[in-house]
Amino acid sequence: MEELKKRILAEGQNLGNGILKIDSLLNHQIDPMLMADIGREIAGRFSGQPITRILTAEISGIGPALMTGLALGVPVVYARKHRPITMKDPVYVESAPSHTKGSEVFLMVSPEFLSSDDCILIVDDFLATGKTIHALARIVRQAGAALVGVGCVVEKTFEGGRAFLADLETRVEALAIIEEMTDDAIIFAG
Amino acid sequence: MEELKKRILAEGQNLGNGILKIDSLLNHQIDPMLMADIGREIAGRFSGQPITRILTAEISGIGPALMTGLALGVPVVYARKHRPITMKDPVYVESAPSHTKGSEVFLMVSPEFLSSDDCILIVDDFLATGKTIHALARIVRQAGAALVGVGCVVEKTFEGGRAFLADLETRVEALAIIEEMTDDAIIFAG
Repeated sequence: MEELKKRILAEGQNLGNGILKIDSLLNHQIDPMLMADIGREIAGRFSGQPITRILTAEISGIGPALMTGLALGVPVVYARKHRPITMKDPVYVESAPSHTKGSEVFLMVSPEFLSSDDCILIVDDFLATGKTIHALARIVRQAGAALVGVGCVVEKTFEGGRAFLADLETRVEALAIIEEMTDDAIIFAG
Repeated sequence: MEELKKRILAEGQNLGNGILKIDSLLNHQIDPMLMADIGREIAGRFSGQPITRILTAEISGIGPALMTGLALGVPVVYARKHRPITMKDPVYVESAPSHTKGSEVFLMVSPEFLSSDDCILIVDDFLATGKTIHALARIVRQAGAALVGVGCVVEKTFEGGRAFLADLETRVEALAIIEEMTDDAIIFAG
């Protein structure tokens, strides 16, 4: 997705240790028009699939997931990391390490919004180590739902996430694939 | 907004102590089509205002804020409650009690995305005690930006938020105004 790559080159900052800051368009500020384009692009890559719901993880996954859900006309469920008082037992729970916070997080989804009838597309902002997405996929499996695929905004191939997701045997799409980040360049695949 | 009220009546659950669970359309699952309508409705109520950005607080404010930003064609900034490693000093910080988590939260916004040139519309999911929204308004003031108004999806008048926001001297709009919740009824104003 050329527009996205252009924006990452113009606004992204390499903070070192493989951390890309794109706070101006995704992780603190969201550009809704770009996000709507991202949602349509992810939806288009899975067109023809019988998707019934989008699953993402709070917080930064919500933007791209919501716009993908709008494009597909299906509800979006965001896994909670802190149990709100409106969430009652039992819930599906899986844990994943938090890349940007340095601790373990628990992802929780209520069975009210995920059932064995569902065909789920997982959407998230980053595919880095793949551990958050893998945890979401395990929640899909716990619920007995079908996993249609994974759509991400940005993939950092050097963190090995795609290989980590291989056992899911599902299609993984990323709109901007970063192969390398040096001190002064962000290098995309292809 | 009649469609929203209908959905709240059909899907909302009164959990007691003034807590309304609308996890099926806003706080755990999001209906993107309803949320797009909500965004257009909030945008319409502030049409003609020179809004440059939307400000909200993570997590549940992101959906309505993003769709309002899409309708208005302006960026959306979400105040962070946990400092991610991509967020550097200095930031604007204000604290507010968390209604649904029972603790204090700190709302943080980077000066990169909020300046004295901005005309800000605050958007959030609930107007309850008004304390989160008041904290966002204080961040707007810290930045020297202008506050155009406040748009909320659901207001619970019995928690007094509108009075708490009175000192902001700004316009407050809510799409579904709940005056009373009894054991078996949710009663809207008007």
